[in-house]
Amino acid sequence: MSAQVGILYGIGVGPGDPELVSLKGLRLLKSAPVVAFPAGLQGTGIAQQIVSQWLRPEQHQLPLKFPYVQEQAVLEQAWQVAAAEVWQYLQQGDVVFVCEGDVSFYSTFTYLAQTLQQHHPDAQIQTIPGICSPLAAAAALGIPLTISSDRLAILPALYTVAELESVLKWADVVVLLKVSSVYEQVWAILKAHQLLEHSYVVERATLPQQVIYQDLHDRPQLELPYFSLLIIQVPRSKSANAN
Amino acid sequence: MSAQVGILYGIGVGPGDPELVSLKGLRLLKSAPVVAFPAGLQGTGIAQQIVSQWLRPEQHQLPLKFPYVQEQAVLEQAWQVAAAEVWQYLQQGDVVFVCEGDVSFYSTFTYLAQTLQQHHPDAQIQTIPGICSPLAAAAALGIPLTISSDRLAILPALYTVAELESVLKWADVVVLLKVSSVYEQVWAILKAHQLLEHSYVVERATLPQQVIYQDLHDRPQLELPYFSLLIIQVPRSKSANAN
Repeated sequence: MSAQVGILYGIGVGPGDPELVSLKGLRLLKSAPVVAFPAGLQGTGIAQQIVSQWLRPEQHQLPLKFPYVQEQAVLEQAWQVAAAEVWQYLQQGDVVFVCEGDVSFYSTFTYLAQTLQQHHPDAQIQTIPGICSPLAAAAALGIPLTISSDRLAILPALYTVAELESVLKWADVVVLLKVSSVYEQVWAILKAHQLLEHSYVVERATLPQQVIYQDLHDRPQLELPYFSLLIIQVPRSKSANAN
Repeated sequence: MSAQVGILYGIGVGPGDPELVSLKGLRLLKSAPVVAFPAGLQGTGIAQQIVSQWLRPEQHQLPLKFPYVQEQAVLEQAWQVAAAEVWQYLQQGDVVFVCEGDVSFYSTFTYLAQTLQQHHPDAQIQTIPGICSPLAAAAALGIPLTISSDRLAILPALYTVAELESVLKWADVVVLLKVSSVYEQVWAILKAHQLLEHSYVVERATLPQQVIYQDLHDRPQLELPYFSLLIIQVPRSKSANAN
């Protein structure tokens, strides 16, 4: 490994509002010769949009393609290609990889970093945390996400009805990420448990296009974008272990 | 309500490293005539220490006392006093309240805001999210907190042994906040479930005094500070609903 090899910085740039980037994230972003980001379906991704105002012409922009598929082989192939590209640029200096939200929280960065380390165990990688979407959504709603002895459960999109029912018995607060594809089933469960009035949907928290739904009674169906989440505040009397 | 009444901004200033403050948090902090913060046991609190480099002599500093007790009546009395003080300053302009981590995530700010609104329903309150400690701890460890379809459970300090055992059956990743007072019992459960090698303790994430324990096999006892957390990565084969 040559002395010139740079550091890969994974930077969580927050939920959408560029002002929610951290001072450290911005400092590293501005100083890196190469700025990588997940390419969106249309070429530019959300993370790139968040930081676009700070990118300078002399910085090389490196969109990395991570296909929106489930097939493990296709995904792994994409991670291999991305890691190889990043490694090439690391030979000449630092690379920052920006991604929306936080880099340790259901992030594409994990796969990039792990693949890079498989091939180059000496690669230096640092992660700069960011504000994740459940916190941004709670702030947008003006409610606490959790207080006191609340038990918090966070589920990504791939959950079953049985799983949601069992977590509602256990948790005081439940966050469902990327809820769009399962919203109708979730609504039916919330209705059965009389939780519709304790549930909130937030689309694109902190972006100008942010939309909030505070009462889901009349909303058995919702056309939601990919980055939507649902917060359920289970009343203390309903959660099994309530004091 | 007079036209001069200011806005109360609740600002999450992140886990400890001042560079993890958001641009928005810093902008509001610098522009406010009054900066309130939770007073620590020795007078200055962590939040105040995080932002101290940016405080100007002309800004009024307002430490608010929130006693470290369980008695509801004592706590409520403290919130009443704090809300009344804040309301007094709001008559003359904006007040920012800074607190460590995020303002919606087990934060003192919630009680201050709710008490203020009980007495003054017209009070304007805005919350600026921050980076919470589990994300900072994962970044410090260089591991993902969650990936893919991981189910995440976060428990504050007041949990029972039975509760922890039941959540270990359900979750892929478990975070125990403020683990110091129950560490020995937790260690015994982790040992019984063969999870010691999958568990991590982080003290004061992102601060210069940060300490990391990556393998807990030889650590049945640890002297931990109040702001310590424990992350358990339950192997897929052990979590009940693993795919």
